[in-house]
Amino acid sequence: MKKDNRTKILSVALKLLNEQDSQSVTTNHIAEAAGVSTGNLYYHFKNKEEIIRELYGQMRDEIGFESQPLPETLCEMQSYCDYVAKVWWKYRFLRRELHFLMTRDDLFAKDVIKDVRLQREKMILLLLHLRDKGYIELAYDNMLNNIVDTMMLYSHFWTPYLYIIGEDIDVSKAQMVAQRIEEVLRPFLTKKAKTELAKCQ
Amino acid sequence: MKKDNRTKILSVALKLLNEQDSQSVTTNHIAEAAGVSTGNLYYHFKNKEEIIRELYGQMRDEIGFESQPLPETLCEMQSYCDYVAKVWWKYRFLRRELHFLMTRDDLFAKDVIKDVRLQREKMILLLLHLRDKGYIELAYDNMLNNIVDTMMLYSHFWTPYLYIIGEDIDVSKAQMVAQRIEEVLRPFLTKKAKTELAKCQ
Repeated sequence: MKKDNRTKILSVALKLLNEQDSQSVTTNHIAEAAGVSTGNLYYHFKNKEEIIRELYGQMRDEIGFESQPLPETLCEMQSYCDYVAKVWWKYRFLRRELHFLMTRDDLFAKDVIKDVRLQREKMILLLLHLRDKGYIELAYDNMLNNIVDTMMLYSHFWTPYLYIIGEDIDVSKAQMVAQRIEEVLRPFLTKKAKTELAKCQ
Repeated sequence: MKKDNRTKILSVALKLLNEQDSQSVTTNHIAEAAGVSTGNLYYHFKNKEEIIRELYGQMRDEIGFESQPLPETLCEMQSYCDYVAKVWWKYRFLRRELHFLMTRDDLFAKDVIKDVRLQREKMILLLLHLRDKGYIELAYDNMLNNIVDTMMLYSHFWTPYLYIIGEDIDVSKAQMVAQRIEEVLRPFLTKKAKTELAKCQ
């Protein structure tokens, strides 16, 4: 029963945080919407920050960035990108408010920075891997870092970007990020890569 | 004298907002640091939001995005990018907290969205202009929109990106954005463009 309440609190918190901004959502709101007492909420979580860190951890586990092996084919890479975009949408308040939440919670900021750096390293490995497999050509120095940073910008700031240009953000627009990341790579793709990509589902 | 206080309040507010986060800076802090009474601050500005909107307007005027004619040469474009990066650094809290500030003030959000859309349109015109002058080649459909969105991502989220990867941000790192935007264009540059760029200061 204790465990059920914990799960319920997290799922209700995610819903509220996605709908509103994190400043407007209080632990009282979360407890009320989850149908538990505030005392019960505090039995499970020290404060709102701890709930947010827990949701971040869930997202992290669902993406499995650390454990994920490098894709063997471009189609595999494409479907992994689609999958990640879906998980990001599920936890969209974390995309939208990442920077702000980091300034409010040092522990959270530390976790995020560690993960983002790890993600960047993995993306560098991925590009080297794609180059070794003959999928991309890197013609000049620093190109690798530039491409990776561009992909990272898309992965972290695509929905905030849609927000600042005043677009209504829905799941289909959010998922366009996978296609955009592919576009970043396009100028560097070899003929072999283009042929293979055209055959993906 | 009234005008002097107004200017002083704005310049002190900019300093404090750049140093701390906007939630920690209150009108009381600003008045105290500017050496004016809180009453005097409220004589000039209704609230902190109005001060922020005013600083945003100053940045906007300094960039002169609306009035700026399209650059005639690539070197002109390069030095304009450098200039804009300098202005952004001066008002860096606006880069860092743009999204959050928009959620706190609808008037501000409206202004920003209008400007960002205008900037996007101008960038499309710029790329078409560069293509017509034989500086870039756009090989497939949608390429234009993708490049512009990538440049916009760099222009708005480069410093937030440095923040989430845990880099200490200083003026030189912030100004690297001009060079990164050039890198985005590089795969599409013609020989003519590359020759001309190599000759810029």
